[in-house]
Amino acid sequence: MRLRNVKGANEIIENSLYIIKNYHEYKSKYNILFGNNNPIHIEIGMGKGDFIINMAKKYPNINFIGIEKFDSVLVRAIEKIDEDIPNLRFIRMDATDIESVFYNEVDTLYLNFSDPWPKNRHEHRRLTSERFLRRYDNLFVKDKKIIMKTDNRKLFEFSIISFTNYGYKIEELSLDMYSDNIKENVQTEYEKKFHEKGYPIYRISIKK
Amino acid sequence: MRLRNVKGANEIIENSLYIIKNYHEYKSKYNILFGNNNPIHIEIGMGKGDFIINMAKKYPNINFIGIEKFDSVLVRAIEKIDEDIPNLRFIRMDATDIESVFYNEVDTLYLNFSDPWPKNRHEHRRLTSERFLRRYDNLFVKDKKIIMKTDNRKLFEFSIISFTNYGYKIEELSLDMYSDNIKENVQTEYEKKFHEKGYPIYRISIKK
Repeated sequence: MRLRNVKGANEIIENSLYIIKNYHEYKSKYNILFGNNNPIHIEIGMGKGDFIINMAKKYPNINFIGIEKFDSVLVRAIEKIDEDIPNLRFIRMDATDIESVFYNEVDTLYLNFSDPWPKNRHEHRRLTSERFLRRYDNLFVKDKKIIMKTDNRKLFEFSIISFTNYGYKIEELSLDMYSDNIKENVQTEYEKKFHEKGYPIYRISIKK
Repeated sequence: MRLRNVKGANEIIENSLYIIKNYHEYKSKYNILFGNNNPIHIEIGMGKGDFIINMAKKYPNINFIGIEKFDSVLVRAIEKIDEDIPNLRFIRMDATDIESVFYNEVDTLYLNFSDPWPKNRHEHRRLTSERFLRRYDNLFVKDKKIIMKTDNRKLFEFSIISFTNYGYKIEELSLDMYSDNIKENVQTEYEKKFHEKGYPIYRISIKK
Protein backbone atom coordinates (compact mmCIF):
# COMPACT_ATOMS: atom_id res chain seq x y z
CA MET A 1 0.00 0.00 0.00
CA ARG A 2 1.29 3.47 -0.85
CA LEU A 3 0.97 5.68 2.16
CA ARG A 4 0.70 9.42 2.18
CA ASN A 5 1.23 11.50 5.27
CA VAL A 6 -2.14 12.72 6.42
CA LYS A 7 -1.99 16.12 8.10
CA GLY A 8 -3.33 16.07 11.62
CA ALA A 9 -3.78 12.29 11.52
CA ASN A 10 -2.12 11.83 14.85
CA GLU A 11 -4.42 14.31 16.56
CA ILE A 12 -7.55 12.80 15.06
CA ILE A 13 -6.46 9.35 16.20
CA GLU A 14 -5.54 10.54 19.69
CA ASN A 15 -8.96 12.12 20.12
CA SER A 16 -11.10 9.33 18.66
CA LEU A 17 -13.31 7.40 21.04
CA TYR A 18 -12.93 4.40 18.76
CA ILE A 19 -9.23 4.09 19.46
CA ILE A 20 -8.24 1.91 22.40
CA LYS A 21 -5.19 3.69 23.79
CA ASN A 22 -4.34 1.65 26.90
CA TYR A 23 -4.87 -1.62 25.05
CA HIS A 24 -2.34 -3.61 27.07
CA GLU A 25 -4.49 -3.11 30.14
CA TYR A 26 -7.45 -4.89 28.57
CA LYS A 27 -5.58 -8.09 27.84
CA SER A 28 -7.94 -11.01 28.58
CA LYS A 29 -10.68 -8.58 29.62
CA TYR A 30 -11.88 -6.86 26.48
CA ASN A 31 -15.35 -7.96 27.51
CA ILE A 32 -15.13 -5.26 30.21
CA LEU A 33 -14.31 -2.63 27.60
CA PHE A 34 -17.36 -3.60 25.56
CA GLY A 35 -19.53 -4.16 28.60
CA ASN A 36 -20.78 -7.52 27.42
CA ASN A 37 -19.65 -11.08 26.74
CA ASN A 38 -20.32 -11.13 23.02
CA PRO A 39 -17.75 -12.89 20.82
CA ILE A 40 -14.75 -10.82 19.77
CA HIS A 41 -13.58 -10.77 16.15
CA ILE A 42 -10.37 -9.00 15.19
CA GLU A 43 -8.91 -7.90 11.88
CA ILE A 44 -5.17 -7.45 11.57
CA GLY A 45 -4.29 -4.85 8.97
CA MET A 46 -7.72 -3.24 8.67
CA GLY A 47 -6.48 -0.48 6.38
CA LYS A 48 -9.14 2.13 5.73
CA GLY A 49 -11.68 0.06 7.63
CA ASP A 50 -14.45 -0.64 5.11
CA PHE A 51 -14.58 -4.31 6.05
CA ILE A 52 -14.58 -4.04 9.82
CA ILE A 53 -16.90 -1.02 9.96
CA ASN A 54 -19.49 -2.74 7.79
CA MET A 55 -19.10 -6.03 9.64
CA ALA A 56 -19.72 -4.20 12.94
CA LYS A 57 -22.85 -2.59 11.52
CA LYS A 58 -24.07 -5.89 10.11
CA TYR A 59 -23.40 -7.97 13.22
CA PRO A 60 -24.21 -5.85 16.30
CA ASN A 61 -23.93 -8.89 18.59
CA ILE A 62 -20.28 -9.39 17.78
CA ASN A 63 -17.54 -7.06 19.03
CA PHE A 64 -15.03 -6.05 16.37
CA ILE A 65 -11.51 -4.77 16.91
CA GLY A 66 -9.49 -3.53 13.95
CA ILE A 67 -5.73 -3.39 14.17
CA GLU A 68 -3.65 -1.10 11.98
CA LYS A 69 -0.16 0.30 12.31
CA PHE A 70 -0.33 3.11 9.78
CA ASP A 71 -1.85 6.41 10.96
CA SER A 72 -2.54 7.53 7.42
CA VAL A 73 -5.10 4.76 6.78
CA LEU A 74 -6.37 4.43 10.34
CA VAL A 75 -7.44 8.07 10.22
CA ARG A 76 -9.49 7.35 7.09
CA ALA A 77 -11.34 4.62 8.94
CA ILE A 78 -12.16 6.95 11.82
CA GLU A 79 -13.42 9.60 9.40
CA LYS A 80 -15.74 7.07 7.75
CA ILE A 81 -17.79 6.41 10.88
CA ASP A 82 -21.04 8.34 10.45
CA GLU A 83 -23.10 6.82 13.26
CA ASP A 84 -22.49 5.31 16.70
CA ILE A 85 -21.10 1.79 16.45
CA PRO A 86 -20.72 0.60 20.05
CA ASN A 87 -19.37 -2.82 19.05
CA LEU A 88 -16.36 -1.42 17.17
CA ARG A 89 -12.89 -0.32 18.29
CA PHE A 90 -9.49 0.19 16.71
CA ILE A 91 -5.97 -0.36 17.97
CA ARG A 92 -2.93 1.37 16.51
CA MET A 93 -0.14 -1.17 16.82
CA ASP A 94 2.19 -3.48 14.94
CA ALA A 95 0.88 -7.04 14.53
CA THR A 96 4.12 -8.50 15.89
CA ASP A 97 2.94 -7.37 19.36
CA ILE A 98 -0.39 -9.17 19.12
CA GLU A 99 0.44 -11.69 21.86
CA SER A 100 0.88 -8.94 24.43
CA VAL A 101 -2.58 -7.52 23.68
CA PHE A 102 -5.02 -10.45 23.53
CA TYR A 103 -5.20 -13.67 25.51
CA ASN A 104 -7.87 -16.34 25.46
CA GLU A 105 -10.61 -14.04 24.19
CA VAL A 106 -10.71 -13.89 20.39
CA ASP A 107 -13.30 -15.87 18.47
CA THR A 108 -12.28 -15.16 14.85
CA LEU A 109 -9.31 -13.50 13.18
CA TYR A 110 -9.65 -11.86 9.75
CA LEU A 111 -6.70 -11.32 7.43
CA ASN A 112 -7.81 -9.33 4.41
CA PHE A 113 -5.54 -8.43 1.52
CA SER A 114 -2.46 -8.56 3.72
CA ASP A 115 0.89 -7.34 2.48
CA PRO A 116 2.27 -10.23 0.35
CA TRP A 117 5.94 -9.54 1.16
CA PRO A 118 6.91 -11.22 -2.12
CA LYS A 119 10.63 -11.66 -1.44
CA ASN A 120 11.60 -15.01 0.05
CA ARG A 121 13.74 -13.37 2.69
CA HIS A 122 10.67 -11.49 3.97
CA GLU A 123 8.58 -14.66 4.35
CA HIS A 124 8.44 -14.26 8.14
CA ARG A 125 6.77 -10.88 7.79
CA ARG A 126 3.75 -12.36 6.05
CA LEU A 127 0.80 -12.46 8.44
CA THR A 128 0.19 -16.10 7.49
CA SER A 129 3.75 -17.32 8.09
CA GLU A 130 4.42 -19.93 10.74
CA ARG A 131 5.98 -17.25 12.91
CA PHE A 132 2.69 -15.31 12.95
CA LEU A 133 0.53 -18.43 13.32
CA ARG A 134 2.48 -19.18 16.48
CA ARG A 135 1.77 -15.65 17.73
CA TYR A 136 -1.96 -16.17 17.17
CA ASP A 137 -2.13 -19.45 19.11
CA ASN A 138 -3.02 -17.98 22.50
CA LEU A 139 -5.40 -15.26 21.34
CA PHE A 140 -8.34 -17.55 20.85
CA VAL A 141 -11.00 -18.53 23.39
CA LYS A 142 -11.62 -22.02 22.09
CA ASP A 143 -11.20 -23.10 18.48
CA LYS A 144 -8.69 -21.07 16.53
CA LYS A 145 -10.53 -19.65 13.55
CA ILE A 146 -8.99 -17.57 10.77
CA ILE A 147 -10.67 -16.23 7.63
CA MET A 148 -8.44 -14.86 4.90
CA LYS A 149 -9.16 -13.08 1.63
CA THR A 150 -6.63 -11.90 -0.93
CA ASP A 151 -6.13 -11.23 -4.60
CA ASN A 152 -2.46 -12.18 -4.36
CA ARG A 153 -1.94 -15.64 -5.81
CA LYS A 154 1.55 -16.26 -4.45
CA LEU A 155 0.53 -15.17 -0.95
CA PHE A 156 -2.51 -17.42 -1.11
CA GLU A 157 -0.52 -20.46 -2.26
CA PHE A 158 2.00 -19.81 0.51
CA SER A 159 -0.78 -19.38 3.08
CA ILE A 160 -2.60 -22.62 2.22
CA ILE A 161 0.65 -24.54 2.71
CA SER A 162 1.53 -22.62 5.88
CA PHE A 163 -1.92 -23.12 7.47
CA THR A 164 -2.16 -26.83 6.74
CA ASN A 165 1.44 -27.54 7.78
CA TYR A 166 0.65 -25.81 11.06
CA GLY A 167 -2.24 -28.20 11.65
CA TYR A 168 -5.19 -26.04 10.64
CA LYS A 169 -8.06 -27.81 8.86
CA ILE A 170 -9.62 -26.08 5.88
CA GLU A 171 -13.33 -25.43 6.39
CA GLU A 172 -14.06 -23.47 3.21
CA LEU A 173 -11.93 -22.66 0.20
CA SER A 174 -12.69 -20.62 -2.88
CA LEU A 175 -10.24 -19.86 -5.66
CA ASP A 176 -12.69 -17.40 -7.19
CA MET A 177 -15.09 -16.07 -4.59
CA TYR A 178 -17.15 -13.99 -6.95
CA SER A 179 -17.99 -17.03 -9.07
CA ASP A 180 -19.43 -18.68 -5.98
CA ASN A 181 -22.44 -17.74 -3.92
CA ILE A 182 -21.18 -14.99 -1.61
CA LYS A 183 -24.23 -13.03 -0.60
CA GLU A 184 -22.96 -12.79 2.98
CA ASN A 185 -19.69 -11.22 1.89
CA VAL A 186 -18.51 -7.83 3.19
CA GLN A 187 -15.98 -6.18 0.87
CA THR A 188 -12.73 -4.43 1.68
CA GLU A 189 -11.56 -1.41 -0.36
CA TYR A 190 -8.95 -3.50 -2.17
CA GLU A 191 -11.36 -6.30 -2.81
CA LYS A 192 -13.81 -3.95 -4.53
CA LYS A 193 -11.03 -2.47 -6.67
CA PHE A 194 -9.41 -5.75 -7.67
CA HIS A 195 -12.66 -7.55 -8.28
CA GLU A 196 -13.77 -4.71 -10.58
CA LYS A 197 -10.49 -5.14 -12.47
CA GLY A 198 -11.49 -8.77 -13.06
CA TYR A 199 -8.93 -10.45 -10.81
CA PRO A 200 -10.06 -13.58 -8.95
CA ILE A 201 -10.46 -13.08 -5.20
CA TYR A 202 -9.29 -16.02 -3.08
CA ARG A 203 -10.85 -16.92 0.27
CA ILE A 204 -10.09 -19.54 2.90
CA SER A 205 -11.62 -20.31 6.25
CA ILE A 206 -9.58 -22.51 8.60
CA LYS A 207 -9.94 -23.97 12.08
CA LYS A 208 -7.76 -25.73 14.64
CA MET B 1 -15.05 -36.66 -21.78
CA ARG B 2 -17.35 -37.54 -24.67
CA LEU B 3 -16.56 -41.01 -25.83
CA ARG B 4 -17.17 -42.43 -29.25
CA ASN B 5 -17.10 -46.09 -30.01
CA VAL B 6 -13.93 -46.84 -31.87
CA LYS B 7 -14.28 -49.67 -34.35
CA GLY B 8 -11.90 -52.51 -33.69
CA ALA B 9 -10.66 -50.87 -30.49
CA ASN B 10 -11.00 -54.05 -28.54
CA GLU B 11 -8.90 -56.01 -31.01
CA ILE B 12 -6.16 -53.38 -31.12
CA ILE B 13 -6.04 -53.32 -27.31
CA GLU B 14 -6.00 -57.13 -27.06
CA ASN B 15 -3.07 -57.35 -29.46
CA SER B 16 -0.95 -54.50 -28.09
CA LEU B 17 2.29 -55.43 -26.34
CA TYR B 18 1.88 -52.31 -24.22
CA ILE B 19 -1.23 -53.66 -22.53
CA ILE B 20 -0.70 -55.69 -19.36
CA LYS B 21 -3.45 -58.30 -19.56
CA ASN B 22 -2.79 -60.48 -16.52
CA TYR B 23 -2.14 -57.50 -14.31
CA HIS B 24 -3.37 -59.12 -11.09
CA GLU B 25 -0.51 -61.60 -11.33
CA TYR B 26 2.09 -58.84 -11.16
CA LYS B 27 0.84 -57.40 -7.90
CA SER B 28 3.90 -56.43 -5.82
CA LYS B 29 6.22 -57.66 -8.58
CA TYR B 30 5.92 -55.21 -11.46
CA ASN B 31 9.69 -54.93 -11.28
CA ILE B 32 9.77 -58.44 -12.83
CA LEU B 33 7.58 -57.28 -15.71
CA PHE B 34 9.94 -54.38 -16.43
CA GLY B 35 13.07 -56.45 -15.71
CA ASN B 36 14.57 -53.81 -13.45
CA ASN B 37 14.10 -52.10 -10.08
CA ASN B 38 13.52 -48.61 -11.37
CA PRO B 39 10.85 -46.54 -9.63
CA ILE B 40 7.29 -47.05 -10.82
CA HIS B 41 5.03 -44.08 -11.56
CA ILE B 42 1.38 -44.62 -12.39
CA GLU B 43 -1.29 -42.38 -13.90
CA ILE B 44 -4.93 -43.11 -13.18
CA GLY B 45 -7.18 -41.96 -16.01
CA MET B 46 -4.47 -41.54 -18.65
CA GLY B 47 -6.99 -40.78 -21.42
CA LYS B 48 -5.32 -40.60 -24.82
CA GLY B 49 -1.91 -40.97 -23.21
CA ASP B 50 -0.02 -37.80 -24.22
CA PHE B 51 1.22 -37.23 -20.69
CA ILE B 52 2.37 -40.72 -19.82
CA ILE B 53 3.88 -41.47 -23.23
CA ASN B 54 5.93 -38.29 -23.17
CA MET B 55 6.92 -38.80 -19.54
CA ALA B 56 8.15 -42.30 -20.41
CA LYS B 57 10.21 -40.94 -23.29
CA LYS B 58 11.62 -38.15 -21.15
CA TYR B 59 12.49 -40.31 -18.13
CA PRO B 60 13.73 -43.70 -19.37
CA ASN B 61 14.90 -44.68 -15.88
CA ILE B 62 11.41 -44.56 -14.49
CA ASN B 63 8.77 -47.19 -15.31
CA PHE B 64 5.37 -45.75 -16.22
CA ILE B 65 2.03 -47.51 -16.07
CA GLY B 66 -1.06 -45.76 -17.41
CA ILE B 67 -4.49 -46.86 -16.24
CA GLU B 68 -7.63 -46.22 -18.26
CA LYS B 69 -11.04 -47.84 -18.29
CA PHE B 70 -12.34 -46.58 -21.63
CA ASP B 71 -11.32 -48.55 -24.72
CA SER B 72 -12.06 -45.65 -27.04
CA VAL B 73 -9.31 -43.46 -25.57
CA LEU B 74 -6.91 -46.24 -24.62
CA VAL B 75 -6.76 -47.28 -28.27
CA ARG B 76 -5.75 -43.73 -29.22
CA ALA B 77 -2.82 -43.94 -26.81
CA ILE B 78 -1.67 -47.22 -28.31
CA GLU B 79 -1.89 -45.77 -31.81
CA LYS B 80 0.28 -42.81 -30.79
CA ILE B 81 3.32 -44.91 -29.92
CA ASP B 82 5.74 -44.55 -32.84
CA GLU B 83 8.90 -46.02 -31.30
CA ASP B 84 9.80 -48.67 -28.72
CA ILE B 85 9.21 -47.42 -25.18
CA PRO B 86 10.30 -50.28 -22.92
CA ASN B 87 9.50 -48.41 -19.71
CA LEU B 88 5.82 -47.92 -20.57
CA ARG B 89 2.74 -50.11 -20.09
CA PHE B 90 -1.01 -49.66 -19.92
CA ILE B 91 -3.72 -51.36 -17.91
CA ARG B 92 -7.38 -51.38 -18.91
CA MET B 93 -9.28 -51.31 -15.64
CA ASP B 94 -11.51 -49.28 -13.36
CA ALA B 95 -9.65 -47.28 -10.72
CA THR B 96 -11.84 -48.67 -7.94
CA ASP B 97 -9.88 -51.94 -8.30
CA ILE B 98 -6.49 -50.29 -7.84
CA GLU B 99 -5.81 -51.98 -4.49
CA SER B 100 -6.00 -55.43 -6.04
CA VAL B 101 -3.39 -54.53 -8.66
CA PHE B 102 -0.52 -52.75 -6.88
CA TYR B 103 0.99 -53.26 -3.46
CA ASN B 104 4.03 -51.60 -1.93
CA GLU B 105 5.63 -50.73 -5.26
CA VAL B 106 4.46 -47.35 -6.56
CA ASP B 107 6.67 -44.31 -6.21
CA THR B 108 4.40 -41.56 -7.58
CA LEU B 109 0.74 -41.35 -8.61
CA TYR B 110 -0.42 -38.82 -11.21
CA LEU B 111 -4.00 -37.58 -11.42
CA ASN B 112 -4.40 -35.37 -14.47
CA PHE B 113 -7.64 -33.62 -15.39
CA SER B 114 -9.72 -36.23 -13.63
CA ASP B 115 -13.48 -36.32 -14.00
CA PRO B 116 -14.79 -33.63 -11.60
CA TRP B 117 -18.07 -35.44 -10.78
CA PRO B 118 -19.63 -32.08 -9.94
CA LYS B 119 -22.71 -33.36 -8.13
CA ASN B 120 -22.37 -33.65 -4.36
CA ARG B 121 -23.85 -37.13 -4.33
CA HIS B 122 -21.04 -38.29 -6.66
CA GLU B 123 -18.29 -36.96 -4.39
CA HIS B 124 -17.02 -40.49 -3.67
CA ARG B 125 -16.37 -41.07 -7.35
CA ARG B 126 -13.82 -38.26 -7.52
CA LEU B 127 -10.31 -39.73 -7.68
CA THR B 128 -9.24 -37.37 -4.88
CA SER B 129 -12.04 -38.24 -2.45
CA GLU B 130 -11.22 -39.78 0.91
CA ARG B 131 -12.54 -43.10 -0.36
CA PHE B 132 -9.96 -43.14 -3.14
CA LEU B 133 -7.15 -41.80 -0.95
CA ARG B 134 -7.75 -44.79 1.30
CA ARG B 135 -7.48 -47.10 -1.73
CA TYR B 136 -4.13 -45.56 -2.64
CA ASP B 137 -2.59 -46.02 0.83
CA ASN B 138 -1.02 -49.41 0.24
CA LEU B 139 0.19 -48.86 -3.31
CA PHE B 140 3.25 -46.91 -2.38
CA VAL B 141 6.74 -48.23 -1.60
CA LYS B 142 7.68 -45.59 0.94
CA ASP B 143 6.35 -42.03 0.98
CA LYS B 144 2.96 -41.64 -0.60
CA LYS B 145 3.36 -39.09 -3.37
CA ILE B 146 0.58 -37.71 -5.56
CA ILE B 147 0.82 -35.03 -8.25
CA MET B 148 -2.43 -33.57 -9.55
CA LYS B 149 -3.22 -31.15 -12.37
CA THR B 150 -6.63 -29.85 -13.36
CA ASP B 151 -8.44 -26.90 -14.90
CA ASN B 152 -11.52 -27.59 -12.77
CA ARG B 153 -11.69 -25.08 -9.94
CA LYS B 154 -14.32 -26.86 -7.85
CA LEU B 155 -12.51 -30.20 -8.11
CA PHE B 156 -9.25 -28.53 -7.13
CA GLU B 157 -10.77 -26.79 -4.10
CA PHE B 158 -12.33 -30.10 -3.05
CA SER B 159 -9.05 -31.94 -3.54
CA ILE B 160 -6.93 -29.53 -1.49
CA ILE B 161 -9.32 -29.98 1.43
CA SER B 162 -9.53 -33.75 0.93
CA PHE B 163 -5.72 -34.22 0.74
CA THR B 164 -4.92 -32.10 3.77
CA ASN B 165 -7.73 -33.57 5.88
CA TYR B 166 -6.34 -37.00 5.05
CA GLY B 167 -2.93 -35.99 6.43
CA TYR B 168 -1.05 -35.23 3.24
CA LYS B 169 1.41 -32.33 3.37
CA ILE B 170 1.49 -29.95 0.42
CA GLU B 171 4.91 -29.83 -1.21
CA GLU B 172 4.13 -27.55 -4.16
CA LEU B 173 1.02 -25.62 -5.08
CA SER B 174 0.25 -23.46 -8.08
CA LEU B 175 -3.07 -21.78 -8.79
CA ASP B 176 -1.85 -20.78 -12.24
CA MET B 177 0.89 -23.10 -13.44
CA TYR B 178 1.56 -21.29 -16.68
CA SER B 179 2.33 -18.05 -14.86
CA ASP B 180 5.03 -19.87 -12.93
CA ASN B 181 8.26 -21.42 -14.15
CA ILE B 182 7.21 -24.80 -15.50
CA LYS B 183 9.91 -25.79 -17.95
CA GLU B 184 9.84 -29.39 -16.70
CA ASN B 185 6.11 -29.74 -17.37
CA VAL B 186 4.71 -32.45 -19.65
CA GLN B 187 1.27 -31.55 -21.01
CA THR B 188 -1.85 -33.67 -21.28
CA GLU B 189 -4.26 -33.23 -24.22
CA TYR B 190 -6.79 -31.40 -22.04
CA GLU B 191 -4.15 -29.22 -20.49
CA LYS B 192 -2.98 -28.00 -23.91
CA LYS B 193 -6.53 -27.27 -24.96
CA PHE B 194 -7.63 -25.51 -21.79
CA HIS B 195 -4.43 -23.54 -21.42
CA GLU B 196 -4.81 -22.30 -24.98
CA LYS B 197 -8.33 -21.15 -24.12
CA GLY B 198 -6.79 -19.03 -21.36
CA TYR B 199 -8.03 -21.00 -18.34
CA PRO B 200 -5.70 -21.25 -15.35
CA ILE B 201 -4.23 -24.71 -14.82
CA TYR B 202 -3.98 -25.77 -11.17
CA ARG B 203 -1.25 -28.09 -9.86
CA ILE B 204 -0.51 -29.64 -6.49
CA SER B 205 2.16 -32.02 -5.29
CA ILE B 206 1.54 -33.76 -1.96
CA LYS B 207 3.32 -36.25 0.27
CA LYS B 208 2.55 -38.35 3.31
